[in-house]
Amino acid sequence: MSDKRVYLYDSTLRDGAQTQGVDFSSADKIAIVHELDRLGVDYIEGGWPGANPTDDAFFAEAPTLSRARLSAFGMTRRAGRSAENDPGLQALLVPSVSVITVVGKTWDFQVSVALGVELDENLRMIAESVAHLRTRVAEVIFDAEHFFDGYRANPQYALSCIKAAYEAGARWVVLCDTNGGLLPHDVETIVGDAAKTVPGSHLGIHCHNDSDNAVANSLAAVRAGVRQVQGTLNGLGERCGNANLISVIPNLVLKMGYETGISAADLTKLTHVSRALDERLNRAPNRHAAYVGESAFAHKGGLHVSAVEKDPRCYEHVVPELVGNRRHIVVSDQAGRSNILARFREIGFDIDPSDPKIGHLIEEVKLREFNGYAYDGAEASFELLARRVLEGLPELFRIHSFRVIDERRWNSKNELITLSEATIKAEVGGDLLMTVAEGNGPVSALDAALRKVLTPVFPQLADLRLVDYKVRILDPKAATAAVTRVMIESADRHGERWCTVGVSANVIDASFNALHDSITYKLLRDGVTQG
Amino acid sequence: MSDKRVYLYDSTLRDGAQTQGVDFSSADKIAIVHELDRLGVDYIEGGWPGANPTDDAFFAEAPTLSRARLSAFGMTRRAGRSAENDPGLQALLVPSVSVITVVGKTWDFQVSVALGVELDENLRMIAESVAHLRTRVAEVIFDAEHFFDGYRANPQYALSCIKAAYEAGARWVVLCDTNGGLLPHDVETIVGDAAKTVPGSHLGIHCHNDSDNAVANSLAAVRAGVRQVQGTLNGLGERCGNANLISVIPNLVLKMGYETGISAADLTKLTHVSRALDERLNRAPNRHAAYVGESAFAHKGGLHVSAVEKDPRCYEHVVPELVGNRRHIVVSDQAGRSNILARFREIGFDIDPSDPKIGHLIEEVKLREFNGYAYDGAEASFELLARRVLEGLPELFRIHSFRVIDERRWNSKNELITLSEATIKAEVGGDLLMTVAEGNGPVSALDAALRKVLTPVFPQLADLRLVDYKVRILDPKAATAAVTRVMIESADRHGERWCTVGVSANVIDASFNALHDSITYKLLRDGVTQG
Repeated sequence: MSDKRVYLYDSTLRDGAQTQGVDFSSADKIAIVHELDRLGVDYIEGGWPGANPTDDAFFAEAPTLSRARLSAFGMTRRAGRSAENDPGLQALLVPSVSVITVVGKTWDFQVSVALGVELDENLRMIAESVAHLRTRVAEVIFDAEHFFDGYRANPQYALSCIKAAYEAGARWVVLCDTNGGLLPHDVETIVGDAAKTVPGSHLGIHCHNDSDNAVANSLAAVRAGVRQVQGTLNGLGERCGNANLISVIPNLVLKMGYETGISAADLTKLTHVSRALDERLNRAPNRHAAYVGESAFAHKGGLHVSAVEKDPRCYEHVVPELVGNRRHIVVSDQAGRSNILARFREIGFDIDPSDPKIGHLIEEVKLREFNGYAYDGAEASFELLARRVLEGLPELFRIHSFRVIDERRWNSKNELITLSEATIKAEVGGDLLMTVAEGNGPVSALDAALRKVLTPVFPQLADLRLVDYKVRILDPKAATAAVTRVMIESADRHGERWCTVGVSANVIDASFNALHDSITYKLLRDGVTQG
Repeated sequence: MSDKRVYLYDSTLRDGAQTQGVDFSSADKIAIVHELDRLGVDYIEGGWPGANPTDDAFFAEAPTLSRARLSAFGMTRRAGRSAENDPGLQALLVPSVSVITVVGKTWDFQVSVALGVELDENLRMIAESVAHLRTRVAEVIFDAEHFFDGYRANPQYALSCIKAAYEAGARWVVLCDTNGGLLPHDVETIVGDAAKTVPGSHLGIHCHNDSDNAVANSLAAVRAGVRQVQGTLNGLGERCGNANLISVIPNLVLKMGYETGISAADLTKLTHVSRALDERLNRAPNRHAAYVGESAFAHKGGLHVSAVEKDPRCYEHVVPELVGNRRHIVVSDQAGRSNILARFREIGFDIDPSDPKIGHLIEEVKLREFNGYAYDGAEASFELLARRVLEGLPELFRIHSFRVIDERRWNSKNELITLSEATIKAEVGGDLLMTVAEGNGPVSALDAALRKVLTPVFPQLADLRLVDYKVRILDPKAATAAVTRVMIESADRHGERWCTVGVSANVIDASFNALHDSITYKLLRDGVTQG
């Protein structure tokens, strides 16, 4: 095997599950394992057998993998007990795994203070646990917890811990920056020294992002000789997260010339894998994420856009398609004609740049931006506006009037409550309909009433939902002339998300306009052409 | 000056303004400048005079700073024109700045391809622009765009560009990784070579985060000799953002032993500055942000918590209070006490730290923050809460009920209009009063009605006005359980401004609560003690 081969070890399902606010179901875990397997990582840590029911259920019905090896995570044996008789170690021997990772202490201070164990007994705990597991599974990995803090406190002891694991038969000894506070130059120095005790081809690195350097630290360790990198998708993990494999992988492959199990074709799945995880967690993807974010190859300033169109190398560090991403031209008031034209090409408008309608559209965009619209974050509203000006849009429904009432009063339990109720009159599919609905506030009531009146004719609106709602007052200096900008993010059950914008002096009008755009966009995209 | 002194240059208002979705008003810029000045950065880049009306308005009424120097950003002169006659350069000479930063090309490919300029003419553009500005302002900074790509393509030419700027009198020559794709080991090598041409004490670094290494690259450059670091708050910036100063600063100060303009006391403002920026941008702070995130020192569950309680070094890389953050442990968290005490001192409360009421207040703050309140950007609401718990607040007026109606309908000119009208019943000065008022939307109508009913008794409310109103939906995942947080900024004719917060499932309730706090705060500050 080439000296340039680096093995990737994903811990999204174990260390990533420690993230505040993240709670994987067994079905989530199975779906994520398949994504990771298709991507081409070498090891997938499935969880900690015996630690909780979700992990037990997962290992009991563990999926069959085509490329990756599944590992179970646990701890070295307890003090004063044999490895054979340690229930924690026994629990790790689940039939579905051929790799077991055990974590043990290497920091003298932690052994003595947190564990209250003799230093020599800790060495035996490491060696005997690894040796015992080694007779039962194909590969044992030792995670050296707090190795870097341990090395700084007592280098001799920390090194003796990793030596014990290696000599007992661990395939990999993984150096963990458990507190996440290291900086790359420290990593390079300390790993260089560790590689004199355990060969680099048997060393791994496990970083946390507490100093915002987890990716750089992982790369520094590889340069210093380690050949396994642990991390998580999108940098999930407790506190500030683990090393983000979504960033580590393209840096290793595209920039540093290392080989991993991930081919060039696999690498183009990276953007999808990152966003699929967020969808599963029901979180908005970080649009500024390196390599895979929606804005990672977005160009906003007019000068940048014209330079990028001349030669993308001017403002792009890699070709976006290599990681499955794409270039994105942003429409905003910083943009000139070249941005707007580039944006048309992106949304699939094949339009002659000399078409006089383009002039109308640019004027319309500028006028609207002057009046407070911002299309920068509201691509769906921009597309509707462009289609309206360039090819005309069908009117799928017409709202005749609405009324919203918010009332705060005492209820029968002598509590102050506020109720919101919206009444709407609309022409839908040739009929004049009227309905009323309640909501948590006027916009929520209006949204409920709109969907109530439209869903009988457009059943696909049943699964549309508001996922975010933001309000901003523009030009707060001119109090009387101030306008309100509302940005709405919507989603459907396919996980599609789109953003719309509405602007008006009245926040209810602005909200209504953004809601109207959201519904129209959803219907048009579903191929509806008439009400 | 010590060789360990590193200068900090903030570009939040210029490069950060390129972030997709970010749109600073002139008022935003002024507020952010004051935060940065209090924090203690050396340079604040205010914007690009002549590029857009917002930046012009900002420089025309630039705030007076007590510690930082304000800089204006622009480009070197155009090809084939003298520096004296270049309108772009002239526009930079605004009276409010003593520092001008000009960006110029250093990559031969970009000079020839994107600019279509002779290589020698580009050198003259750099030298003559710097020399001309040098006669007009105290300090000139040269941003060497694409320096690293330029160095890799043609090291001799890239170095001749920075040499030209330095010899023409630039105080700083800043090496820019414009495409953001560098890795730390490349930075260290290339900067090391650049420092043979321009002394490190005159070199700066400007990184982007496209490879997820902007912070590490900035630190690597400092190790290689540069003494100015450019970046932005929270890593704002186009594509994947700029180097995050919020991470760079504590790494330099706490871990690498460098000196900056930021004292130990200033460093404790870091968490506040980071969150205040997000509040202003109406974005949810990244709870996993290094150093300042809400989860950065959060300990989830069993083993970690007991280890941390034995000794925090077990799972904390630095003491959270050093950066104004705090430990979050699910059980009995006493860590917030010092923060809250520090906040009291800030707002001028001289309170005995052993007063048992402080414990009640801490519990109340925690409960409210758990329910969605955020006091980082709402000092007036925090002060009211504190006074209510610690000394009791008089009830200056009492609202019995209100009703708001928003109605969209056709007017007599056949236009669709939306009217908002609020009715309110209140007990003021012993009388039960009822009134009605219109507004641009339900909150504006409610605000008008409230002031209409209160002003006869409290005439000082006549000059109170809403200057900003922001809404955020919290926890958008749990659609039914979602709550709305409203932040209101108010002002009076003395130019005083204060922020209040309201939280409720209903946006009208949340808005009303924030309005109520705003009015109460104004009355108490004016010395009113009874209705």
